[in-house]
Amino acid sequence: MKNIFIIGVGLIGGSFALDIKKLHPESTIYGIDKNEAHLTEAIALNVIDKAAEFEDLEKADLVILSIPVDAAINVLPKVLDHVSDNAIVFDVGSTKEDICDKVKNHANRRNYLAVHPIAGTEHSGPKAALNGLYKNKTNIICEVEETAFKLQEKALKLFSDLGMRIRYMNPKAHDKHIAYVSHLSHISAFMLGKTVIDKEKNERDIFDMAGSGFESTVRLAKSSPAMWTPIFQQNKTNVIETLDEFISNLNHFKKLMEEDNFEAVYEEMESTNYIKDILNGIQ
Amino acid sequence: MKNIFIIGVGLIGGSFALDIKKLHPESTIYGIDKNEAHLTEAIALNVIDKAAEFEDLEKADLVILSIPVDAAINVLPKVLDHVSDNAIVFDVGSTKEDICDKVKNHANRRNYLAVHPIAGTEHSGPKAALNGLYKNKTNIICEVEETAFKLQEKALKLFSDLGMRIRYMNPKAHDKHIAYVSHLSHISAFMLGKTVIDKEKNERDIFDMAGSGFESTVRLAKSSPAMWTPIFQQNKTNVIETLDEFISNLNHFKKLMEEDNFEAVYEEMESTNYIKDILNGIQ
Repeated sequence: MKNIFIIGVGLIGGSFALDIKKLHPESTIYGIDKNEAHLTEAIALNVIDKAAEFEDLEKADLVILSIPVDAAINVLPKVLDHVSDNAIVFDVGSTKEDICDKVKNHANRRNYLAVHPIAGTEHSGPKAALNGLYKNKTNIICEVEETAFKLQEKALKLFSDLGMRIRYMNPKAHDKHIAYVSHLSHISAFMLGKTVIDKEKNERDIFDMAGSGFESTVRLAKSSPAMWTPIFQQNKTNVIETLDEFISNLNHFKKLMEEDNFEAVYEEMESTNYIKDILNGIQ
Repeated sequence: MKNIFIIGVGLIGGSFALDIKKLHPESTIYGIDKNEAHLTEAIALNVIDKAAEFEDLEKADLVILSIPVDAAINVLPKVLDHVSDNAIVFDVGSTKEDICDKVKNHANRRNYLAVHPIAGTEHSGPKAALNGLYKNKTNIICEVEETAFKLQEKALKLFSDLGMRIRYMNPKAHDKHIAYVSHLSHISAFMLGKTVIDKEKNERDIFDMAGSGFESTVRLAKSSPAMWTPIFQQNKTNVIETLDEFISNLNHFKKLMEEDNFEAVYEEMESTNYIKDILNGIQ
């Protein structure tokens, strides 16, 4: 792996760049980004070695497409137009059905691997890039059989070197389940933040009353709207289904309280408590 | 401060015990708890020195009432019946209006200080007790003027030694605002956990897809239902109001998605993003 291209030098792409450079010090890491300031910053931070253009992709051994999913869906075919037979191209988006569908008939479909690393923070931009971000993280790969075997191998070797665990899923199942375990959490955090800010906007002192529990619950409301809006758009049907169920559960909880049925309120919480065991499996 | 009594030797009471023993090594820390196993465990862990009974409270210099708020409301008058003029008694509950109302005409009302330390974790029991839990944490004191001046002084000296910042509020305002910045977060976490568990109960593998974001958002769903049910009961009116507003915000977000108004979806998130600045003030 000599020539590595990172398209979108933010948290996710930048973190791949840092770890790959450590694994392959001989490689050159090129950055492509429509945000010139991010490119300059990424070079200054030694996240990438130099800036590049789409025309340079013909020499790529590896291309990582780490941009918002609405942009990714348009840029991926262009990337596949440029790369050679030996290049593996993977995206990192939080939705997989639309992007897989978009390139299913592309002449270079077999250069592409649909990937979703379950890693990140609520921060963004090149300065958010972290060493070792992917260690022990789950990496979901979709429709692996559509990728050329030797390129699958190349990508899997890299993921293994980064310390990731692989899970294979089809894009439809991925998008459905990720709506529950990721997308809904983000909406919940944003709307919880909104509810409290709306109420307390004239009483900023009130946030002195908030503890680490509140912080934990709304942490994801720091996330980038530019990244998350297209995710919700592409995964609209699944996300609306999760919202329906979440709202229905909240209404039920409220109704139990209104009816003074606090035994049932207790049961609602008690029966969810075993999330402890589930969470112990995460991280 | 020679004789310190902790009623309820769990996370909150136990953490006070650990820090107070460090500040006052000459003191004896007594534990009162209806759970015998917790008393035994607290002694074994050196969280308390010895077990005691209500009759022993007459020798108390300080009594900390750290039990669920439904029990606290019944136990506090009994404690005030037993203590001497020199004892300061404070509770630590997450609701303040009902307990202040309960003892407002008690002969020993001036021995009592209504306190809510904004500290804790999602764990419980004596083994959850932590050294230094209260350092740099906010401590809300309600209707301070109802407590004897020399006993206020004693309590404030302790809170200052523990490193806490004091905020004074009236019980009504406390209960209203804490519903937003604490109680609602807990319900949101529990119902989010429930939504995902209900959907995915037959597919435990799915939780492999969950990342630290999901964990952060549902962390509070590990909390004790025995502690939280009476809090929601005592703060019913305020909590229902927060739920109404949260559900209404979620419905609005869903409606924007259904109408494909993703510009407005972006705006919803963008306008909540400044929670970053607010959260920077916490912890």
